[in-house]
Amino acid sequence: MTTGKINVSVENIFPLIKKFLYSDHEIFLRELVSNATDATLKLKHLTGIGEAKVEYGNPKIEVRIDKEGKKLHIIDQGIGMTGEEVEKYINQVAFSGAEEFLEKYKDSAKDSGIIGHFGLGFYSAFMVAEKVEIITKSYKDEPAVHWTCDGSPEFTLEPSDKTERGSEIILHIAEDSLEFLEEGRIAELLRKYNKFMPVPIKFGTRTETLPTPEDAPEDYKAEEIEVDNIINNPTPAWTKQPADLTDEDYKSFYHELYPTQFEEPLFNIHLNVDYPFNLTGILYFPKMSSDLQVQKDKIQLYQNQVYVTDNVEGIVPEFLTMLRGVIDSPDIPLNVSRSYLQADGAVKKISNYITRKVADKLKSLFTENREDFEQKWNDIKIVLEYGMLSEPKFYEKAGSFVLYPTVDNKFFTIDELKEKLAATQTDKDGKLIVLYASNKDTQHSYIAAARDKGYEVMLLDSPIISHLIQKLEADNKDLMFVRVDADHIDKLINKDEQQISKLSEEEQNKLKTTLEEFIPKSGYSVQLEAMDSNAAPFMITQPEFMRRMKEMSASGGGMFGMGNFPDMYNVVVNTNSELTTNILNSDDKTHQEALVKQALDLAKLSQNLLKGEELTAFVKRSFELIK
Amino acid sequence: MTTGKINVSVENIFPLIKKFLYSDHEIFLRELVSNATDATLKLKHLTGIGEAKVEYGNPKIEVRIDKEGKKLHIIDQGIGMTGEEVEKYINQVAFSGAEEFLEKYKDSAKDSGIIGHFGLGFYSAFMVAEKVEIITKSYKDEPAVHWTCDGSPEFTLEPSDKTERGSEIILHIAEDSLEFLEEGRIAELLRKYNKFMPVPIKFGTRTETLPTPEDAPEDYKAEEIEVDNIINNPTPAWTKQPADLTDEDYKSFYHELYPTQFEEPLFNIHLNVDYPFNLTGILYFPKMSSDLQVQKDKIQLYQNQVYVTDNVEGIVPEFLTMLRGVIDSPDIPLNVSRSYLQADGAVKKISNYITRKVADKLKSLFTENREDFEQKWNDIKIVLEYGMLSEPKFYEKAGSFVLYPTVDNKFFTIDELKEKLAATQTDKDGKLIVLYASNKDTQHSYIAAARDKGYEVMLLDSPIISHLIQKLEADNKDLMFVRVDADHIDKLINKDEQQISKLSEEEQNKLKTTLEEFIPKSGYSVQLEAMDSNAAPFMITQPEFMRRMKEMSASGGGMFGMGNFPDMYNVVVNTNSELTTNILNSDDKTHQEALVKQALDLAKLSQNLLKGEELTAFVKRSFELIK
Repeated sequence: MTTGKINVSVENIFPLIKKFLYSDHEIFLRELVSNATDATLKLKHLTGIGEAKVEYGNPKIEVRIDKEGKKLHIIDQGIGMTGEEVEKYINQVAFSGAEEFLEKYKDSAKDSGIIGHFGLGFYSAFMVAEKVEIITKSYKDEPAVHWTCDGSPEFTLEPSDKTERGSEIILHIAEDSLEFLEEGRIAELLRKYNKFMPVPIKFGTRTETLPTPEDAPEDYKAEEIEVDNIINNPTPAWTKQPADLTDEDYKSFYHELYPTQFEEPLFNIHLNVDYPFNLTGILYFPKMSSDLQVQKDKIQLYQNQVYVTDNVEGIVPEFLTMLRGVIDSPDIPLNVSRSYLQADGAVKKISNYITRKVADKLKSLFTENREDFEQKWNDIKIVLEYGMLSEPKFYEKAGSFVLYPTVDNKFFTIDELKEKLAATQTDKDGKLIVLYASNKDTQHSYIAAARDKGYEVMLLDSPIISHLIQKLEADNKDLMFVRVDADHIDKLINKDEQQISKLSEEEQNKLKTTLEEFIPKSGYSVQLEAMDSNAAPFMITQPEFMRRMKEMSASGGGMFGMGNFPDMYNVVVNTNSELTTNILNSDDKTHQEALVKQALDLAKLSQNLLKGEELTAFVKRSFELIK
Repeated sequence: MTTGKINVSVENIFPLIKKFLYSDHEIFLRELVSNATDATLKLKHLTGIGEAKVEYGNPKIEVRIDKEGKKLHIIDQGIGMTGEEVEKYINQVAFSGAEEFLEKYKDSAKDSGIIGHFGLGFYSAFMVAEKVEIITKSYKDEPAVHWTCDGSPEFTLEPSDKTERGSEIILHIAEDSLEFLEEGRIAELLRKYNKFMPVPIKFGTRTETLPTPEDAPEDYKAEEIEVDNIINNPTPAWTKQPADLTDEDYKSFYHELYPTQFEEPLFNIHLNVDYPFNLTGILYFPKMSSDLQVQKDKIQLYQNQVYVTDNVEGIVPEFLTMLRGVIDSPDIPLNVSRSYLQADGAVKKISNYITRKVADKLKSLFTENREDFEQKWNDIKIVLEYGMLSEPKFYEKAGSFVLYPTVDNKFFTIDELKEKLAATQTDKDGKLIVLYASNKDTQHSYIAAARDKGYEVMLLDSPIISHLIQKLEADNKDLMFVRVDADHIDKLINKDEQQISKLSEEEQNKLKTTLEEFIPKSGYSVQLEAMDSNAAPFMITQPEFMRRMKEMSASGGGMFGMGNFPDMYNVVVNTNSELTTNILNSDDKTHQEALVKQALDLAKLSQNLLKGEELTAFVKRSFELIK
């Protein structure tokens, strides 16, 4: 038996790193600016604990394009490297300086914001550069060095005359990557990845006009000066304490995040947790449009103020991906698959924490200013209802702040609703019947009939409402939801009050036969009811169960195949109405038919069922009637 | 100056490979089965060219779970490795055997289907195993060897008594990966990644009943035997020549790809190109449902019969991502970002090729069986129309087969349409007016009016049709599309035929004043027209331009902010109708108002504008009228 050590061949690994380290080549800039930030923050830490005896000052990072020389420079004023350190951190691939630093100073450096992890980031430079130089001088009293490598594993190292502390990385941009010499492209990348990094980043200069002194003569010419163009905000709102931020601060940070977004957010939730994981961030509830797809993927994920992605699937519970804002956490594993993320315990904890924080915030918004919460209800309900359906933990909490509005804009929680309706809307079997409409316009006549009886009608119009109703009924055994057009009002809430019919049983049978002669059998059943003589003579209803199952099937879920069932309607005919008496007593078949047809058409109109040729004929007939 | 060689530290690289090589740990099985396939195909190649003097036979790959021993075995009967080769290919990370093999045999091995590329695949075993063994015997007359490594960079190598040719990989599954000892999980992975790989893969056995002999006695007991359970189809349809496949073959392959899909595809397109890139595949046009989002991401991407992904964004032009099927190409770079893919020249060529093939196929389907093509039109139009808008190359070709149906199911190409309508629908300015409806039901009365005049009305009801119309008009200067309810019919196609009004100018002024008294000003303009006395007394129209711009804005695009403009309607009043005369001549203001209101309501009904309270009142009033 022989033993040995597996050998990693640098000639073979190097092209792999260049090609596969990151799928997006543009990432190189994020990595190099992150390294520069780390170098600066390390110096800050060491001066802070007194280990580095130098002045920290106000260090900047500078990014500079040399278009003619085809070079891109990234210059920092940080910790720098000695020749020995270059040998250790640069020449040994995958030997991360950041990790070693954090290990060494683990107690004091925990919150220093240092980013680097595996030490491969620097090599991403070779994705876009044919040659890379490092000119660096350590904060320690040692000579500066100059490292050069042309992308082969060979490098050279020589002394340099650099006198200021820090590192300068020079990328000789390769022919296939010349885009990275364009000012617009680099500005775009800095805005995308480094907008909120903690050390000021200079990219070019701009002209500023100095304020005119108060005692300036009339011909005073305002002085102009060149100032550094700092592209980032090193202290974004989410890094601050909620107590230090006003409503205005939150709003203005929202616009900083979404410069093209003109609408104000409805409210925000500041996330801030240290243990058992580290997470900060601000989530905003925007006004929802009806197109839910376009809402998603607006939340930005950062790690230590470095932009990572706007795909937070798996980290934020799905129903909250419609929100906006920022999450910053060093504890979220990157470069792993979504399915891995979803199985990861730490990530699950983060997701649960966010759910809980959102629920708590909603609860406090509801408690502190209910009127305002009610006004925002329509803009937030879809998120909350979806959350109730998809997250059991959210469902538990949601009972106390989720609202059910009436058609005339009163709002009830589920408990308030039960209390409010108990006296009037309990049926003969002791079930509490909640009447609802999905559309105030198309169900107007049915709503009016229910309101006439003194009943409340809820307006439940979300696309997923049938699923939520189903769930609420399952969890509240004495509660039943019925849409206002599911039957006529005395049957919707059946109180067993016998209505007296003007017609004898015999007359009723005769009427039914007559009606069935003129009303098409397919899709319609005739249902005679003794109602108030002033109620509509004819109306069309659609039983609740079937309709709801079809809706659930259409929006995903429900019973298999229900979506393909044909619609079934009842034609409810009021036996006490004058029109019905006239139909029954007419001797003229043609007249009888005309009356039934017109009455049926009018009933169909109220249920939005009169269309096409039938409607055209109805309109024509009605014009004849009035001319 | 010193020079040196960058050093890759194996202790640091190894954990990286384990953690980051693939974001999905499950990939290890795809990689190991791919290696086994390569080992088998290499032997096939070498025996084929006579270099290996052994019998190729009918080799299989076997995957076996040893649940008790917590081991997973992958066994092949391929080329095997000598001790020296293990040292070279396994102990040197990133030294790919496949690449070297292809280089050495480049002329003869080009089409051998060998998969391996960078030689890192084997190490993916360490993502799920705490210890990995290789027992291997080369096809050459050399002793077998046994390699063991526990995931540290240390390995051992010793002789083995294995006598059959080939390699066996034994994974000692780690505690956090025990899912990979579940039969269901492994079967799922084999189905996902290896369903169409070119060497038979055995996973367990199953019982088969032998056929009963014809002369069997009555009490004959059918014999049962154990047979290998082969989970893959090594020669899927797309690897065959179109000439060798029947319609049935294509359909049955469709169901093999989508076992839960019951509907038949409409038609298929076989892709097959060698140069300048290698690509095979079969695309299917499924029946489209109205929810376009769920249609997407059904096309599967393979490389040499190994499943890669179902995300073909960037490879297949976007309008074709609603199709289904398979694409297999070794020339599509993997593990790169979508933005890179889109910029890549080779990928652009592939995308263009697919577009062209689809257009050619559609053209030939149209030419060969127009009737059938027309019947399928409604199921495919959304893809084609979207293609016309998004791919200029497709737009160029689409003219010859994209259809425009009439409301009564006749179908015309754009050229046929122009020819057909030229005589009847050219207006006084020489413009050819194409009348269209977006909905046969809601626009029925307007369609009927146009049909009465002998005009054709097209039914254009796709969600993106307003964009397509806009483009067609821009490219066909003498063509104009107008929806049937944009004006009354004599104005839609203005032939300058003077209609004589029964009313004097003075009477018209008086009528207009009366009407404007009762018709709300906001949203409605009164427009008097001298029309046929039998035409509708009142009708409501909505001018084309504004409506179309609003629609374009709603579906994305068009002029900015148009979506927020209020709807504007005209009330077209027929001065020659009896009703209008009655209104004009009535002395009773109350009666006049009642007539105007009822007429306006009827006009609104035809345009689907009478809703809610207004409709309820109308229905109540109309019941009164007939009782």
